[in-house]
Amino acid sequence: MATRPAETPEPPYYAVVFASQRTEGDHGYGETADEMDRLVRQQPGFLGMDSARDGDGFGITVGYFRDEESIRQWLVQPDHAGARDRGRAEWYHHYSVHVAKVERAYRWDRP
Amino acid sequence: MATRPAETPEPPYYAVVFASQRTEGDHGYGETADEMDRLVRQQPGFLGMDSARDGDGFGITVGYFRDEESIRQWLVQPDHAGARDRGRAEWYHHYSVHVAKVERAYRWDRP
Repeated sequence: MATRPAETPEPPYYAVVFASQRTEGDHGYGETADEMDRLVRQQPGFLGMDSARDGDGFGITVGYFRDEESIRQWLVQPDHAGARDRGRAEWYHHYSVHVAKVERAYRWDRP
Repeated sequence: MATRPAETPEPPYYAVVFASQRTEGDHGYGETADEMDRLVRQQPGFLGMDSARDGDGFGITVGYFRDEESIRQWLVQPDHAGARDRGRAEWYHHYSVHVAKVERAYRWDRP
């Protein structure tokens, strides 16, 4: 497993915060989520990602990208676009997306 | 419970992304987390918050604030400062903080 939280470079860069409430049952979600995880890591400008989902099916994924163009390219990636369509059809009750420019970041590790 | 994901106003505003790996056991964490949740909602400039922690103790909390001054005021709030000290002493193995200016946001709700 990758280091958690993700190790990110010196700002500036972009964060995409995806917060979602899952529907009941899997319906192929797990397999697609794993595939999206694999694909986004190949995306030019991808810098890192953190993700957590609680026992009630509410989750937050934060993806870090070099610039807005990298985000745009990921949005038009065909498999990702298809996964988003399926997400609205089957996997999510609600979601929100916030696109934000990271101005500063720090990390703490237990000594 | 508040609406999830949080309903946020039209950008611009700020997001603070806190990603953390908890230590084992509670050690008073739950009680303090509830108290911080209550206090931050009274903080001038607080706009909303989403939070999820998975079964492995990895969690992401995203707080939304009107401006940098609102974030600064929350950081110097005495109870919050004390909770952060205790977090480093007892509750977290690792954490990261990303402060980012939200440029655009959207939300989807199942029709």
